[in-house]
Amino acid sequence: MTKNLKNAIYAQSGGVTSVINATASGLLTSARAENFGKIYAGVNGIKGVLEENLIDTSSLSAQTLMALKHTPGGFFGSCRFKLPSVEQDAKPYQRLFDIFKAYNIGYFFYNGGNDSADTCLKIGEAAKKFNYDLQAIHLPKTVDNDLPITDFSPGFGSVAKYISVSTRETILDIRSMALTSTKVFILEVMGRHAGWIAASAGLAQTKDNKAPQIILLPEVVFNREKFVEQIKKVVAEDGFAVVVASEGIKDENGRFLSEAEKKDAFGHSQLGGVAPKLAAIVSEDIGLKNHWAVADYLQRSARHLASKVDVDSAYAVGEAGLKFALAGKTQIMPALIRKQQGDAFVWGIEAAPLNQVANVEKKLPSDFITPDGFGISEKAKNYFQPLIIGEDYPPYKDGMPIYLDSVFETVEKKLESYE
Amino acid sequence: MTKNLKNAIYAQSGGVTSVINATASGLLTSARAENFGKIYAGVNGIKGVLEENLIDTSSLSAQTLMALKHTPGGFFGSCRFKLPSVEQDAKPYQRLFDIFKAYNIGYFFYNGGNDSADTCLKIGEAAKKFNYDLQAIHLPKTVDNDLPITDFSPGFGSVAKYISVSTRETILDIRSMALTSTKVFILEVMGRHAGWIAASAGLAQTKDNKAPQIILLPEVVFNREKFVEQIKKVVAEDGFAVVVASEGIKDENGRFLSEAEKKDAFGHSQLGGVAPKLAAIVSEDIGLKNHWAVADYLQRSARHLASKVDVDSAYAVGEAGLKFALAGKTQIMPALIRKQQGDAFVWGIEAAPLNQVANVEKKLPSDFITPDGFGISEKAKNYFQPLIIGEDYPPYKDGMPIYLDSVFETVEKKLESYE
Repeated sequence: MTKNLKNAIYAQSGGVTSVINATASGLLTSARAENFGKIYAGVNGIKGVLEENLIDTSSLSAQTLMALKHTPGGFFGSCRFKLPSVEQDAKPYQRLFDIFKAYNIGYFFYNGGNDSADTCLKIGEAAKKFNYDLQAIHLPKTVDNDLPITDFSPGFGSVAKYISVSTRETILDIRSMALTSTKVFILEVMGRHAGWIAASAGLAQTKDNKAPQIILLPEVVFNREKFVEQIKKVVAEDGFAVVVASEGIKDENGRFLSEAEKKDAFGHSQLGGVAPKLAAIVSEDIGLKNHWAVADYLQRSARHLASKVDVDSAYAVGEAGLKFALAGKTQIMPALIRKQQGDAFVWGIEAAPLNQVANVEKKLPSDFITPDGFGISEKAKNYFQPLIIGEDYPPYKDGMPIYLDSVFETVEKKLESYE
Repeated sequence: MTKNLKNAIYAQSGGVTSVINATASGLLTSARAENFGKIYAGVNGIKGVLEENLIDTSSLSAQTLMALKHTPGGFFGSCRFKLPSVEQDAKPYQRLFDIFKAYNIGYFFYNGGNDSADTCLKIGEAAKKFNYDLQAIHLPKTVDNDLPITDFSPGFGSVAKYISVSTRETILDIRSMALTSTKVFILEVMGRHAGWIAASAGLAQTKDNKAPQIILLPEVVFNREKFVEQIKKVVAEDGFAVVVASEGIKDENGRFLSEAEKKDAFGHSQLGGVAPKLAAIVSEDIGLKNHWAVADYLQRSARHLASKVDVDSAYAVGEAGLKFALAGKTQIMPALIRKQQGDAFVWGIEAAPLNQVANVEKKLPSDFITPDGFGISEKAKNYFQPLIIGEDYPPYKDGMPIYLDSVFETVEKKLESYE
């Protein structure tokens, strides 16, 4: 006998993280413990729901649910798919509620970032219009850390840890080489609109090491001359410079640096990337030997170096989603609340109204940035530091982590196919 | 009372690795245990020796020697510095032996790759000419795995582990996204002349996962049309493609792909990088959305994900260097020998003559590559697999690994300065 008469659908959406599956694990594991109804998972987010590509998660073993906690990527598949407003086009909503009816769905859990919060809110609002009894709950996930209300976003702490540890390691590398070889190292990290990830690299600084001496943020206008002067100054002082650059830095005209010179002599496009652009500036304007790296997917999938705080909070928002569902809440997101207890960092979870979350982007506060625009403040470090605490290593076999491959069967379809 | 009357100099050379300091730790720790004479470290390799920038390693605490084992980069500083032949210019050799005399040096340990082996050999040969009594011992180190005689090179196993684990993680990421978004992911790895690192990414394949479906090696001529066809085929079959490309791939004309189009419309140089070039091909010829990463220094400094076999063997070649020194050997390199005992992988160490090591580059054997040129054979997997076994995590504090910063004092100079 299940506690509730209704079933649920869970789906993953947007760019995945190394801990989004931990949220799935938290939701599904606590649902089993609570004897909750069936939870179906949409394959590839809302797209899979529309197309009735559903997995009955009761078919997943307890071992699989546990392994989800340490498997990066989106086990059920994700999507980038924006629903039209119900006024623009009611058809997808009609389809969704047909699906929901067919599977006796009373709960919709959507695991994603800002855009996905918007999708979740739209579905919740449409349900009211269609008189369909639904609780729509958004489970937060984003490496970008730009969701509002929540103090930090599940997915971010692990990227911050990966970037600060990797930056620290590359500093030790270039420092060894700088006397006779490479003098500038540039690391490009994610963050199209907000500089949270790049800023977190400031944690790599130690008592005896000022690097990364230059952090480039989308919140600060990029100026070639100032950048060049800063590189010269830093190399003169320290013998080498380490630059961590957000992919989203823009010049005085508001153009992304990565897009500024999109075509080369051969008409080739998409050579983009901020790191090679900055490297070219260092070569041309100062003539210093440099190396550059682009972390891209490496950073957001690096489950091997996850932050324990991040994994635990990702798991906890899954559990909280179920708790809020059972408490009758709808159109909310479990938000992480920071509580300082003496010296200890403690976090809790509260329900945040989804209409205050959807489509709102939280930027790096200006007092997180040093006056020269090239570093982060102590206040920023105090914010970031607790988020990378603790290691949560996956199990290994024969030198490789034991991650799940996405092997599952979808349920037999009940409805006609949907274009 | 020390066992031997002579002192030693140790120095690090060439591109550093995440475990070169483990070799220093092995040498210095076993020297203390053996009551060996003083070991001086050259700051920034042979350059520091020439300039009399020396550290008396007896000033380093036991705790520091232990921490060297888990600190990436070159703690004592490295250099890229090629000695002329003694026939070309005897001056640097004269200077070296002046330094050696002043510090009563009877042993020279040089920790590096092919070029450094050449330097070590030259110094050993010059010592004979100058009638200076010296044992020159080369301690192997290279992420490129291209040193001959030794079955594998300290430094390589950890890069192989980092690249195969990271590739596996990015596969799980793109697989989640491919239906509605990114279909091709390209990871550029090191390997200018030999494809060992790129090839090791084949370990990311599992029973249920064929990716990385395309591995591009310097040993195989890059052909744009074949590459495009392979991408199309793989995406049609699997829904996505993961490409791991060695930085050293060349086209039919023997040109590095990364150098093929060095200047863009603005005359900018050094935009290089193989990954963005391949990404541009995928965009132009197939129009598939793609992402790319360049691992660069991230891969060779990633001590956080070191292979235990690699750390242990790096430490062991340091110990073996001392043992061979005490046994009176000169112009040798401790070489790692693979021994298969039933199912178990066991390795030992033997002294390899340095004149068979210096300037010899070991390429990937042709039977390590599949006939289509895009993958690695079972034989290759059997070679690589044991090298990534075991995790050897550094200690952490407050979320960050406890790595040493290079803080030390150099000895007071006895000789005149050297230009």
